[in-house]
Amino acid sequence: MINALVDRIKKMEAPIVVGLDPMLDYVPDYLLQNAIREQGETLEAAAEAVWQYNKGIVDAICDIVPAVKPQIAMYEQFGLPGLGVFKKTVDYCKKKGLVVIGDVKRGDIGSTSAAYAAGHIGKVKVGNKKLAAFDEDFITVNPYFGVDGIKPFVEVCKEEKKGLFILVKTSNPSSGEFQDQKINGKPLYELVGEQVVKWGEECMGDTYSYVGAVVGATYPEMGRIMRKVMPKTYILVPGYGAQGGTAKDLLPYFNEDGLGAIVNSSRGIIAAYKQPAYERFGETGFAEAARQAALDMKEDINSIF
Amino acid sequence: MINALVDRIKKMEAPIVVGLDPMLDYVPDYLLQNAIREQGETLEAAAEAVWQYNKGIVDAICDIVPAVKPQIAMYEQFGLPGLGVFKKTVDYCKKKGLVVIGDVKRGDIGSTSAAYAAGHIGKVKVGNKKLAAFDEDFITVNPYFGVDGIKPFVEVCKEEKKGLFILVKTSNPSSGEFQDQKINGKPLYELVGEQVVKWGEECMGDTYSYVGAVVGATYPEMGRIMRKVMPKTYILVPGYGAQGGTAKDLLPYFNEDGLGAIVNSSRGIIAAYKQPAYERFGETGFAEAARQAALDMKEDINSIF
Repeated sequence: MINALVDRIKKMEAPIVVGLDPMLDYVPDYLLQNAIREQGETLEAAAEAVWQYNKGIVDAICDIVPAVKPQIAMYEQFGLPGLGVFKKTVDYCKKKGLVVIGDVKRGDIGSTSAAYAAGHIGKVKVGNKKLAAFDEDFITVNPYFGVDGIKPFVEVCKEEKKGLFILVKTSNPSSGEFQDQKINGKPLYELVGEQVVKWGEECMGDTYSYVGAVVGATYPEMGRIMRKVMPKTYILVPGYGAQGGTAKDLLPYFNEDGLGAIVNSSRGIIAAYKQPAYERFGETGFAEAARQAALDMKEDINSIF
Repeated sequence: MINALVDRIKKMEAPIVVGLDPMLDYVPDYLLQNAIREQGETLEAAAEAVWQYNKGIVDAICDIVPAVKPQIAMYEQFGLPGLGVFKKTVDYCKKKGLVVIGDVKRGDIGSTSAAYAAGHIGKVKVGNKKLAAFDEDFITVNPYFGVDGIKPFVEVCKEEKKGLFILVKTSNPSSGEFQDQKINGKPLYELVGEQVVKWGEECMGDTYSYVGAVVGATYPEMGRIMRKVMPKTYILVPGYGAQGGTAKDLLPYFNEDGLGAIVNSSRGIIAAYKQPAYERFGETGFAEAARQAALDMKEDINSIF
């Protein structure tokens, strides 16, 4: 799957991923009101509004971006109806040719990680059948448990040719609280990055490993270091745009071939219609606004090379 | 909710929680075959078998243990039907008077943690209504993001009088890979524990904080230290039984009042019928075997005081 992702990034000349993180505040009010008219003020109505919103955005961007990253929390908060729309979104995006990165940040002891891996990127056995549940192409994984919490994900990646992005240095303001702590003079995130390299060596694609890393755009100096520590690791870079990362901050995350990193933007694209630069599209033009914002992001990022 | 948990632990004289981690290998084959006859080899059949299994166990133990801890991964692996049974299990356990600890180990940047918190222990707003999605009493949380990934969970705890158990030192063999790394001479898990204390000070119950910690039974020396570092923090202790922790390993996790810790056992109880000591119950007696194993665990643990 890493090969497919790299191919698509090259073909579209767009190292970008659109975060499908549909907070209800981003969803145009008319979509929510339509859904509430049909289903009342229910979790089902919220989920339906999210689905209509996602579908509009996906239709508008699927030919210009290589990948999407649905954040499962934004669906999980609406319970089962929300998770139903997560699954529907994953399926729809794949049908549209997009690579789907499930932003699930799971991680646990070995046997539990194995269940998460089976459910998200692998298959579970029921009787004699092997069945896929959520079936994303990549997922994000939390490394706090160490290698035996990671191995089951790596095993499933090998079997299914899927991929991971393991949290190394996250984009949030307090990420340093634990991740930057120095261990024999080296920050924890660097130690995690070194392990990501080791875990990834077992499952190499053509140029990059199936096992990628998350390093936030908000810490470009750390990006520079981690690029060197993890030369064959694809880096998923959150934090561009709304979280404060700018295009020129992104250069250190890329290799010299212009590959090696994929930059995420969520609200900067999906809620573009709420920003002054795109308000001309109006609420009903939310999807066209998202398309224009994605095109602008592509231009912005390509300007650094 | 921490007060309710402590009360129930005292009343039942049982500082134990039963992990409802229904791996399909634990589910008696006749339950799975019944479900497959009705629904074929599907995710729905697997979920139905898990539900029948859970219901049997919950009915058998609800009057002798204070709490259960469903591990969401074991449901999530069966996709939406599995998560439907997770929700049904949470509701059923609460109806039976059990305190429910959702073992979800979520954690992300602030806005995303807020969505997880709303969905699992809080409420989401849809129109003018506030709706609960999964509605567990407690959940487990991963600390890798630092304070701004934790705060939204703490805020919801305060509002809803719910609780957290934050991962400090996990029970798995490789937990030391990152958690034991020394920072200025102190292991990372101790640093996390100190923060748990700070986060927990904002929401104190009668004796203990709403914000608890996870410290594995497999590392009793670390349990001893963490008990001192976090005197008002309830400790959820996984790793007893199948993972290798014994009753005498558990004493350091408790305060002198015999409170302050709750010990989890999953397969040791729910799959007791597969163990030599309980095989007399047979496959159809899985629930009675679980009850007997819970009674034996209670006796074993109370023997240390």
